[in-house]
Amino acid sequence: MVLVSPRNPLNIGATARAMANFGFSRLAVVAPYEAHWREAQSAVGAEDLLQHATLFRTLQEALANSTLAIGTGTLTHRKAEQRVVPLPDLAPLVRDEIARGGRVDLVFGPEKHGLTRDDLALCHLLVEIPTDARQPSMNLGQAVAVCLYELVRASAPAIEPNTAPTNPFGSKPNAPAATVDRLAELVEQSMQTAGYSPRTMQAANRHDLRLLLRRLNLNAADTRRALGIFRRILWRLQHPRAPQ
Amino acid sequence: MVLVSPRNPLNIGATARAMANFGFSRLAVVAPYEAHWREAQSAVGAEDLLQHATLFRTLQEALANSTLAIGTGTLTHRKAEQRVVPLPDLAPLVRDEIARGGRVDLVFGPEKHGLTRDDLALCHLLVEIPTDARQPSMNLGQAVAVCLYELVRASAPAIEPNTAPTNPFGSKPNAPAATVDRLAELVEQSMQTAGYSPRTMQAANRHDLRLLLRRLNLNAADTRRALGIFRRILWRLQHPRAPQ
Repeated sequence: MVLVSPRNPLNIGATARAMANFGFSRLAVVAPYEAHWREAQSAVGAEDLLQHATLFRTLQEALANSTLAIGTGTLTHRKAEQRVVPLPDLAPLVRDEIARGGRVDLVFGPEKHGLTRDDLALCHLLVEIPTDARQPSMNLGQAVAVCLYELVRASAPAIEPNTAPTNPFGSKPNAPAATVDRLAELVEQSMQTAGYSPRTMQAANRHDLRLLLRRLNLNAADTRRALGIFRRILWRLQHPRAPQ
Repeated sequence: MVLVSPRNPLNIGATARAMANFGFSRLAVVAPYEAHWREAQSAVGAEDLLQHATLFRTLQEALANSTLAIGTGTLTHRKAEQRVVPLPDLAPLVRDEIARGGRVDLVFGPEKHGLTRDDLALCHLLVEIPTDARQPSMNLGQAVAVCLYELVRASAPAIEPNTAPTNPFGSKPNAPAATVDRLAELVEQSMQTAGYSPRTMQAANRHDLRLLLRRLNLNAADTRRALGIFRRILWRLQHPRAPQ
């Protein structure tokens, strides 16, 4: 579970409470407002897991070891750039990724505006809670509770329908995000060195590349192979043989 | 939905928020703490449904027209005196009762101690949220959100279990095989031109590349983009600038 720039100490506390309620323990916090974060940590009855939360400067660092990062948020005002999964369909994907040895992170944005477009580009998919169109936006602590309940709900043995699990990502876990980002960087450098796109397009290209590479759900072996190819290509582009 | 003696205005507000999020509107409140209730009603952004909530002196009066009253709470410290239903199994019971023309009420107790034994005696059954035994007791607003999500979850037509599998690869069809193979060829040429692998490995590489590119389920736009990148890279590899 990753919280990006949470503001309200009560929401931070509520997030920790829901995690404890449903048996989750690993919390990462990205760039929290210092005073609010300290207040949440020192609140009476604060959960242990707030004491053991890991702080990161950027979401990219927080997700470095993640093989399946799941963004959350309300999609009424924008079009999603990656796959959107209704919350009731999420559990099998999470279970399969964990069964393959992957590491899954749910990512929640700041209370006011949610995750930015750049944050979402670091996620493999988005989950959508089936809320009412007239009041779609949930309170942070409640959204966390609902998402974690859904994950626990499905793993309670008595209550799962006996459907055969579909596995959308193949049999191997996805590559960790840090490796995928190294690949994105190499591809970008190769594009630049080859003169593929004007400098003004570079930010847009980086954004699109991240989205694309996450959508591909590359496993570790795929990523190693692609890294090898692009390292060689880049090296040759930078060390051209004399023109013939 | 019935709240019995809620204390914290924030919890009352969170309850109303969750109801609005999931499309519920009928709220009854039993014997609230006057000052806290007024504070919740007058809070900035308070839901309309707080203004229209009905006040009752006793739970019995609040449930007078109810045909199925469902109590909530943590059952670790006492033995239930009536039927206990796990939350994930609740929706069909509610749906059936409503289909029969009945009226269903979810009942939540005060934050500290929950519903009393006497309160519970006014309920037809108890629902249990599958929380962790080490921290079973949920925050009121979060418990409400989780219960209402479960009811909506089951009635959302698109998200029923056992429906046709959602397309695991996103909403766009894959690129035609011929386009993917054109990409495979370009990648292979780039690898050769960059001196990536010895000639003896070329057949094996081609095979692996085809497999890899198919497994990625690239759509038409992805493939066009990748083709553009590799065309440019290959061209630059073949037309190197003079070494500096």
